[in-house]
Amino acid sequence: MAHIAVVYHSGYGHTKLQAEAVARGAAGVMGVSASLLTTDEAIANLDQLDGADGIIFGCPTYMGNVSADMKKFQEVAAKKWFTLAWKDKVAGAFTNSSNFSGDKLNTLIGLMINSMQHGMIYVGTAMMPATNDPAGMQTLNGPGPDALNRYSSFVGPMASSFMVKPPEAPSKGDLETAEHYGARVATVALQLKKGRA
Amino acid sequence: MAHIAVVYHSGYGHTKLQAEAVARGAAGVMGVSASLLTTDEAIANLDQLDGADGIIFGCPTYMGNVSADMKKFQEVAAKKWFTLAWKDKVAGAFTNSSNFSGDKLNTLIGLMINSMQHGMIYVGTAMMPATNDPAGMQTLNGPGPDALNRYSSFVGPMASSFMVKPPEAPSKGDLETAEHYGARVATVALQLKKGRA
Amino acid sequence: MAHIAVVYHSGYGHTKLQAEAVARGAAGVMGVSASLLTTDEAIANLDQLDGADGIIFGCPTYMGNVSADMKKFQEVAAKKWFTLAWKDKVAGAFTNSSNFSGDKLNTLIGLMINSMQHGMIYVGTAMMPATNDPAGMQTLNGPGPDALNRYSSFVGPMASSFMVKPPEAPSKGDLETAEHYGARVATVALQLKKGRA
Amino acid sequence: MAHIAVVYHSGYGHTKLQAEAVARGAAGVMGVSASLLTTDEAIANLDQLDGADGIIFGCPTYMGNVSADMKKFQEVAAKKWFTLAWKDKVAGAFTNSSNFSGDKLNTLIGLMINSMQHGMIYVGTAMMPATNDPAGMQTLNGPGPDALNRYSSFVGPMASSFMVKPPEAPSKGDLETAEHYGARVATVALQLKKGRA
Repeated sequence: MAHIAVVYHSGYGHTKLQAEAVARGAAGVMGVSASLLTTDEAIANLDQLDGADGIIFGCPTYMGNVSADMKKFQEVAAKKWFTLAWKDKVAGAFTNSSNFSGDKLNTLIGLMINSMQHGMIYVGTAMMPATNDPAGMQTLNGPGPDALNRYSSFVGPMASSFMVKPPEAPSKGDLETAEHYGARVATVALQLKKGRA
Repeated sequence: MAHIAVVYHSGYGHTKLQAEAVARGAAGVMGVSASLLTTDEAIANLDQLDGADGIIFGCPTYMGNVSADMKKFQEVAAKKWFTLAWKDKVAGAFTNSSNFSGDKLNTLIGLMINSMQHGMIYVGTAMMPATNDPAGMQTLNGPGPDALNRYSSFVGPMASSFMVKPPEAPSKGDLETAEHYGARVATVALQLKKGRA
Repeated sequence: MAHIAVVYHSGYGHTKLQAEAVARGAAGVMGVSASLLTTDEAIANLDQLDGADGIIFGCPTYMGNVSADMKKFQEVAAKKWFTLAWKDKVAGAFTNSSNFSGDKLNTLIGLMINSMQHGMIYVGTAMMPATNDPAGMQTLNGPGPDALNRYSSFVGPMASSFMVKPPEAPSKGDLETAEHYGARVATVALQLKKGRA
Repeated sequence: MAHIAVVYHSGYGHTKLQAEAVARGAAGVMGVSASLLTTDEAIANLDQLDGADGIIFGCPTYMGNVSADMKKFQEVAAKKWFTLAWKDKVAGAFTNSSNFSGDKLNTLIGLMINSMQHGMIYVGTAMMPATNDPAGMQTLNGPGPDALNRYSSFVGPMASSFMVKPPEAPSKGDLETAEHYGARVATVALQLKKGRA
C-alpha cells in the first residue's frame, strides 16, 4: 500500500474542488490511499505527513505566485527539511487562477522548487495538450472547458475559475485533468515503494 | 525621436504576425519609429541595434522555452553585454505557442532575464486580464479570441495559434494585445529618452 | 524630486541591512528621497506607497521563494492592482539567503512578476559580475566578500549570510552592491519622472 | 540493470568534466550502466536514448538560460515528445557557469520544464547545503571549492569555472557533487525499474 497526502490551500473553493479531484484520482489507484489536508491542518499535524509516500501541493495563484497560506506552510515545514524527513517522497503540484494562463506556471515552479529542497521526486502531468486532440483544435476558441489538459500544462495540472463560483468552476475538464494527475502521481509512488522494498 | 527595434524568430509565421503588431504599435506612438528584424538579420547587423532606444524580443515557445534561434541570437549578442553596450535601453518580450498557457511564461522570463543581464529596463503589458471585462467573464469558456490580454499575461503579451495557420492565427485579440504592448514599450522608451536629455 | 520606497521583510536582520543599503543608495541620488518600510508597516500604510515613484521589494529566500511575510504583503497590495494604482512606477527587488546561490533567483523572479502584474517598470542591477574584475578571478575560491556583485546577479542584488549574524553579515561587498542598486533604481525613477513632466 | 544516458553540451570543457562526473556517479551504482553523449551525438542518435531508463541533461548557462546547442537538441527531440516516447523515464539536470550564482537556476528550471513536457520524472540533488556543514560556515567567505553542494542547489548540481580553465575547474567539490547526483538519479531509476517489473 502507498499513501498520498494532498496538502492544499483554497481561498474561494475552486482549489478545494481541484484538490478533491487530485485525491480522488490518487485513491482510485489500486493499492493507494489518499488523504486531504488544508495547509492549516497540515501545519497542525505536520508529523502526519512523514508517513506519506507522496505529497501533492496545491494552491491558487495569487499575484503571480503561490498563496501566502501555502508559503506559510512551506516555512513551517522547513523543520522537516532540516532532517530531510521527506526525502525520496514523490511530489506533485497543482494550481487554479481566474484566467487561462496568468502566472500559474510560476506557482507550479515554486511548488516544485520547494519539493526539490526537501529531496523529493517530482512528477508532472505527462499528458498531451488538448489541442492535439482533433476535436479541440483548428479553431481560435481553443479547447473548451471539457477538454483534458486544456491549458497544455506539464509541470502540474492547471485549472481556471473565470470568476465563476464553485461548484460550477473549475470546469469538468479541469477536474478530470486533476483526477488523472492524482492517479499518475499515486502510480509512480507505488512503483517507487515496490522498487525499494 | 525614439527608436524601437523588434527582434523576433518565427517558425511558422504566427510569431511574425505578432512581431509586426508589436512594431506597428510602437511606430504608432508619436515621435517613435520602429524596425523589425528576424534573429538572423539581427545577428548579421548586430551593431544596428546599438542605436535603438528599446529592443523587444519575441519568439515561439518551443519545448517550454525560448526557441533555439532566439537563443543563438542571445549568445551572439553576448558581445554587446561584454561592454554593456545595451545598458539602459528599454526591453520587452512576447511569445506565441499552440495553446492557452503551456510554458509561455518560461519563455517570457527567459527573455526578461537576458535583458537584465544587458542592464536593460523591462516593461510588461500593464494590461488588466480579459476576464475582468464583464463581457468576457462568468463563463467557463473564458474570454474569446477577440479579447485583449485573453491569457492574463503581465510580463509580456502571449498569443496562441491552436494549430490554425497564419494569417488566421493568432487571433484579432492577440494581435491587438501585441499592438497595445508595442505602444506601451515605445511610450516608456520615449519618456526615458526625454528624461535623460 | 522623486521618491523611492523600500518595502522589505527581514527574519533575522540580514535583509534589513540590505534594505537599509538599498535605501541609502537611493537617497544618495540628488533629487531623490527614500523611505524604508517593513511589510507589516506597508500593509498598515498601503496608501502611502501610492505617492512613491518607485518601490523596491526585498525579502529573504525561504524554502526557495519569497518569504510568507512578503507574500502576504503582495496579497494585501492586490487592492492596488485592481485599479492599477501602481502602474508605471519603477520596481526593483533584492534578496538574502544563507548560501551562494540557492534558489535566490526564484525569489527575485517572484518579486519581478508581481511588479509586472502591477504594471510597473522593472530595473535590475546592470552590474558586471565580480569575476570580470581581474582581482577576483582566476581562482576557484571565486570573488570574496568585499566584491561587488559577487554572485553575478542581474535581476536584482543578492546577499548571503552564511550563518553569520548581523551586522557582520551580509558582507561589505554585498551591502555596497545593494547601495549601488538603490542608486540605479532611483536614477531611472528620476529620469522617468522628468521625461513624463 | 538500468541505463542512464547523460546528454550534455560543453563550450569550453567545464561542463564536459561535470558531465563525466555525473556519468561516473551513475555507473558506480550497482546494476546501472551509463553513457555520455554530446548534444550533437544525441541528435545524430536520437533513438538510442529510447532505451535509457533515465536521461540527465547538462549544459552551460549562457546569457541566463540553457545554451543554444542544448536548446537545439531539445527541439530535435520534440519528435520523441509527439509519441511520449520518453514518458516515465527519470530526468535530471546540471549546469556550469563562470560565477557563484548568476542565472544558473533558470537553466536548471528550463531543463526540468522540458523533461516535464516529455512526461519524465524529475530527480534533484537531495543534498543539504554546504553551509550546514560546521566546517564550511560561520565565515563570509562561504564554503570553499572542495565543499559538496557549495552553492546550495536543489534542482540539480551547479558548478562554477571562475574563468579558470579545465581541468583545474570545476573544483573538486563541484565534481564530487556532480558524482553524488549521478548516483542519486541512477538509484531512483533503478528503483522505479524494479517497481515496475
